[in-house]
Amino acid sequence: MKLSRILRDGPDGMQPRTVAVIPEDEAVIDLRSAERVRLQHKGASAEAARRMAAALFPGSLTEAVGAGEVFTAHAASAIEASDEDSLVPFSEVRWTAPVDPPVMLDASAFEQHLVNAHARGKRTVPDLFYELPVYYKMNSVTVLGHEDVVPWPGGAHFMDYELEIAIVIGSTGANLRPEEALRHVLGVTVMNDFSARDVQAREMTAGFGPAKGKDFGTVLGPWITTLDELDLDDLTMLARVNGEEWSRGSTSTLTWSLEELVAYASRNEVVVPGQVIGSGTVGLGCGLELYRKLSPGDEVELEIEGVGVLRNRLGEPSQTRWDPQVKERKAEVTLPTRE
Amino acid sequence: MKLSRILRDGPDGMQPRTVAVIPEDEAVIDLRSAERVRLQHKGASAEAARRMAAALFPGSLTEAVGAGEVFTAHAASAIEASDEDSLVPFSEVRWTAPVDPPVMLDASAFEQHLVNAHARGKRTVPDLFYELPVYYKMNSVTVLGHEDVVPWPGGAHFMDYELEIAIVIGSTGANLRPEEALRHVLGVTVMNDFSARDVQAREMTAGFGPAKGKDFGTVLGPWITTLDELDLDDLTMLARVNGEEWSRGSTSTLTWSLEELVAYASRNEVVVPGQVIGSGTVGLGCGLELYRKLSPGDEVELEIEGVGVLRNRLGEPSQTRWDPQVKERKAEVTLPTRE
Repeated sequence: MKLSRILRDGPDGMQPRTVAVIPEDEAVIDLRSAERVRLQHKGASAEAARRMAAALFPGSLTEAVGAGEVFTAHAASAIEASDEDSLVPFSEVRWTAPVDPPVMLDASAFEQHLVNAHARGKRTVPDLFYELPVYYKMNSVTVLGHEDVVPWPGGAHFMDYELEIAIVIGSTGANLRPEEALRHVLGVTVMNDFSARDVQAREMTAGFGPAKGKDFGTVLGPWITTLDELDLDDLTMLARVNGEEWSRGSTSTLTWSLEELVAYASRNEVVVPGQVIGSGTVGLGCGLELYRKLSPGDEVELEIEGVGVLRNRLGEPSQTRWDPQVKERKAEVTLPTRE
Repeated sequence: MKLSRILRDGPDGMQPRTVAVIPEDEAVIDLRSAERVRLQHKGASAEAARRMAAALFPGSLTEAVGAGEVFTAHAASAIEASDEDSLVPFSEVRWTAPVDPPVMLDASAFEQHLVNAHARGKRTVPDLFYELPVYYKMNSVTVLGHEDVVPWPGGAHFMDYELEIAIVIGSTGANLRPEEALRHVLGVTVMNDFSARDVQAREMTAGFGPAKGKDFGTVLGPWITTLDELDLDDLTMLARVNGEEWSRGSTSTLTWSLEELVAYASRNEVVVPGQVIGSGTVGLGCGLELYRKLSPGDEVELEIEGVGVLRNRLGEPSQTRWDPQVKERKAEVTLPTRE
């Protein structure tokens, strides 16, 4: 099954709708519409069918997925029973992010990218990357979807893409072992972790990880492919800029497996439905590793075999309205005398 | 106004309810109940009153606050009109986190804490902390409330509290200037950024900031005090462990103002209703700066003058079920020759 979300207009304005994607038909099935019709054929009144379809397929994929097997079973039935009326051709689709994650992590599980990125900064990769599948947290609010224009943040000069595969969690789990992890995964999608390299390099000197260098917009999509349709072990990953191939890699080069990423994310806490866990960039999967930068208006296409092609254009540089003024160093150390 | 959430039992199990807090009466007003009764007195049918009260006061404070002035106006009316039936005495209250943040940041705006914490690591504070009000992102899913037991994560040895004031955003804003920022703030609450210092120190060597060292549980509460009730410039901040005062500070020692934290959070992105922005720890506001550690079962009380007292007990050490195995270094640098 391939799941995503689109925006549809109505008397209450544009609203997200959960869809199943049929790439071979270049169309999506509006699951709420299809389920409403199916329930009516089963004898539900129009109003009851509308109410139940709305509860099963809300605009939030995170809320929908929270129903677990109830969601997947009804989605399968709705797809099976769907007719022409619930089909929307790609040509009429306005995509949005396939999921609205409650929290979003990004690991760095491809050693090759780490080695190259650190070499550019004349550094070697810290030992910890080999000891733990560490991650930082992304901004779950500024997620974008397929064909969205990605804003060029004010003050940034070196814009870059990052070619990643992202896991979408299907059910709650805590302290999972890797061999249990995939049972809690709904599927995977393509992630473009757009980055402002100059902003990121500067802010990371504080030791707090990336923030403004990445949080202006991370793209997910075009849809989530469920695990039953994929062999995760060797998926080709590609990036094209304005139609030219810049990057080519494979999930076979992962140092930490997707199972290990999920297990570690759940360590001493929970993973929850709709949560996204990025793999980190595949080796040579960004301009930083190629001495190349993106320009305003560039079109970036990321492709993962069997998953989909995620396409976005980069916007024009924007302006900021306020710049922090430097503060003076004032405080002296006030640690007590150690007993 | 003081706003929070409590858990109440019913035919569908325990559910969060949005409440107004009346500390002088040691009671809360269940806003949905109070509004339902008020609307009935205004002529609404029981069913219509129930439906509208549910839309105005859902269990999610983030969703409620999204209604902006519609929310605050109805909350004020409901409090004004409330009678005995919608009051719940503190003795019968089970608190939960006052807000369910869509995203949660933590800055480090008190220089004294930074100077002391870096001195303990024989380091000086990076320049960037004086140039930008940097932050890392917390886990918005594992937020706890007043009187919740805080889990002691498996593998952690040095447990600590952090005494912080946290901003709760009331309305969406982007690229705000500091002088505009407070218009987008609902109020403030007390934050205890519980930390596993040994885990945090180790993971921060990767440069990705804190994660497992903090994400097992951050506490907010006991309630949000709206800005109209406070002068933010000089609020006393206190921490007591098992009744003994360990920390005392003031918001007057902030290097970056709360206005600047909000403005920076909105730079090149958005701040959204329900979002939480922590101040970072006040000087001497944690055990790390005092050569003291928490023990299992310790009771930590954080107090901010005019805001409230947030009290939690630390649980017993837990066990992990899986430890990552160290990976070998394999990859060579594959950067292209620079043109």
